[in-house]
Amino acid sequence: MKYNTMKAVYPSPTTVSENKVQLAHGGGGKLMQQLIKDIIYPAFENPILNQAHDGAVFNMTESKIAMTTDSFVVNPLFFNGGNIGNLAINGTVNDLCCCGATPRYLTASFIIEEGFSFEKLRHIVNAMKKSASESGVDIITGDTKVVQRGLCDGIYINTCGVGTIKESVSISSDRIKTDDVLIISGKIGEHGISILSARNELGFDVDISSDTAPLNKMIGELVEKIDVHFMRDPTRGGVASTLNEIAEQSGRQILLYEELLPIPEAVNNACEMLGIDPLCVANEGCILIFVSKEDEKKALDILHKYEAGKNACRIGEVRNVTSVANVIMHTYMDNYRVIDHFSGEQLPRIC
Amino acid sequence: MKYNTMKAVYPSPTTVSENKVQLAHGGGGKLMQQLIKDIIYPAFENPILNQAHDGAVFNMTESKIAMTTDSFVVNPLFFNGGNIGNLAINGTVNDLCCCGATPRYLTASFIIEEGFSFEKLRHIVNAMKKSASESGVDIITGDTKVVQRGLCDGIYINTCGVGTIKESVSISSDRIKTDDVLIISGKIGEHGISILSARNELGFDVDISSDTAPLNKMIGELVEKIDVHFMRDPTRGGVASTLNEIAEQSGRQILLYEELLPIPEAVNNACEMLGIDPLCVANEGCILIFVSKEDEKKALDILHKYEAGKNACRIGEVRNVTSVANVIMHTYMDNYRVIDHFSGEQLPRIC
Repeated sequence: MKYNTMKAVYPSPTTVSENKVQLAHGGGGKLMQQLIKDIIYPAFENPILNQAHDGAVFNMTESKIAMTTDSFVVNPLFFNGGNIGNLAINGTVNDLCCCGATPRYLTASFIIEEGFSFEKLRHIVNAMKKSASESGVDIITGDTKVVQRGLCDGIYINTCGVGTIKESVSISSDRIKTDDVLIISGKIGEHGISILSARNELGFDVDISSDTAPLNKMIGELVEKIDVHFMRDPTRGGVASTLNEIAEQSGRQILLYEELLPIPEAVNNACEMLGIDPLCVANEGCILIFVSKEDEKKALDILHKYEAGKNACRIGEVRNVTSVANVIMHTYMDNYRVIDHFSGEQLPRIC
Repeated sequence: MKYNTMKAVYPSPTTVSENKVQLAHGGGGKLMQQLIKDIIYPAFENPILNQAHDGAVFNMTESKIAMTTDSFVVNPLFFNGGNIGNLAINGTVNDLCCCGATPRYLTASFIIEEGFSFEKLRHIVNAMKKSASESGVDIITGDTKVVQRGLCDGIYINTCGVGTIKESVSISSDRIKTDDVLIISGKIGEHGISILSARNELGFDVDISSDTAPLNKMIGELVEKIDVHFMRDPTRGGVASTLNEIAEQSGRQILLYEELLPIPEAVNNACEMLGIDPLCVANEGCILIFVSKEDEKKALDILHKYEAGKNACRIGEVRNVTSVANVIMHTYMDNYRVIDHFSGEQLPRIC
């Protein structure tokens, strides 16, 4: 019986560059162990990750738990204000925040294209480390797969996160009430336009950075001190799609005021040139927040204490349904415009 | 200000086949909602998923929790004994089992290639539903991304799972003791060979199905009744790589007996033709189990009650380190062979 390895069928790792990820790095053998030990473990190091088991084992102090996941396929991988690594951590941290949870533990899974450079991988992993440490979460387990050249666009990253929720906190669309105030915690459209700019799809230069940021400290204080009814971050599909989903779920109508929308001039100009609606552009560092009218000032005071919340403002309110439209906007022209979901083909691979 | 959508830049969804996933299905708008409502929700339906929030909120009855994740990039997507959907559920369920946990909740994230057929997607999602229901877990949240044609091999799936661990259970490589018995719960090499066969890389027909199966009921009973010291499933890298990692972590030597290895004749024949070692071939439905000598019979009696465990047997034992080799095998020829990690290039994209 011949127990030699299968070198006749697949090229030996020594025949390809050692500065690049090879198919063999995903095979479950020595090279995979080496990749994980050299690049992944040193960045994410913590006692739970160091268990190095099929999974991670930990204790949760509260029994009410939030869990969320996202795969990141953003193109390009690097852009003004961050890269796919920051997005992968901040996106999952913020989704946990929107559930009213304190983010605790994240997983990180990589699908890497054969030939991807170790240098870029290190850069991305270090960005993940920075974002994780900023938001106080640990990356406790993960997975690495390698696919043949041309079957991935460099790297795709999945993160999954768990967090704990205090018994008193209840964030749910059915808690949205008529006359609730709608607050946005930051400016609109910066992430999407920064990605289009990095893709050179604008045809002109804009001075815009992605707003990607972990919002858990700010939102944590908000949830602790205010009875937040509902929150969601307007990522893919932008403010328009997110509000339409919320309106449908809550059976209410949402009224926006155009003059209150914090859309940076550069975003507005870029959108006007491209013929797209800033309300359909993705955001990665702001959250839509529904609170009672009485809590509006207190909520804004808390948000304004944080860098990520310094531009927080009221942008609308909740009404009983007065027409077939779920979301309407009072415009500069003193009339009303229907804000619809966009159909979906606007900005692929924005996160 | 022109608030029209960006049809000039990306093709309208009406111009491509309606039986296939379009880029617009990943855009966060109406089409994405429709894809999720038509295909994903009906299959996975459960009260937590139906919250339809950025994440899922649930209560855990025990504070000791296991969490694990895996991305599945298997090629081909469909093979004898299952498809990528079964693998994605069973793989994560089994990783939780190996931590001594009762699997509870899973997430499911899809990266789909533009042009992938709805029919195949439904087939895969239904396989996930079947595996999830077989193992009694709920899929409670997820994510869908679509990438351009040629930037994914049809579909990649990530699952992440959480489970609860009883306080009395402690599965850890540092609990492996000298003279412990090594049991394998099923036959060796079936998954890997069934994948190679589906790729037509064997050049001949073999009558082998993947062993993919959720093992939580069987392993649950085992952990409840026996003090299991350590468990891991020998997936990528096979029995050889998994045992080498375990030996390193535990600081012990593992001795296998060639005559005890449950390698099906068809696997042996295929491996001999290809010049690969069955011990390096991936498995998806069996687990390596370390228990004390005294518990061997009781453990085997439990395993044999289950279909997935009917071929369970002792294959080796734990020794003090007697040489530089971590894993050695007593062969049919009455000598000893070193069983090394394989270097990694043997069988890419096996799971």
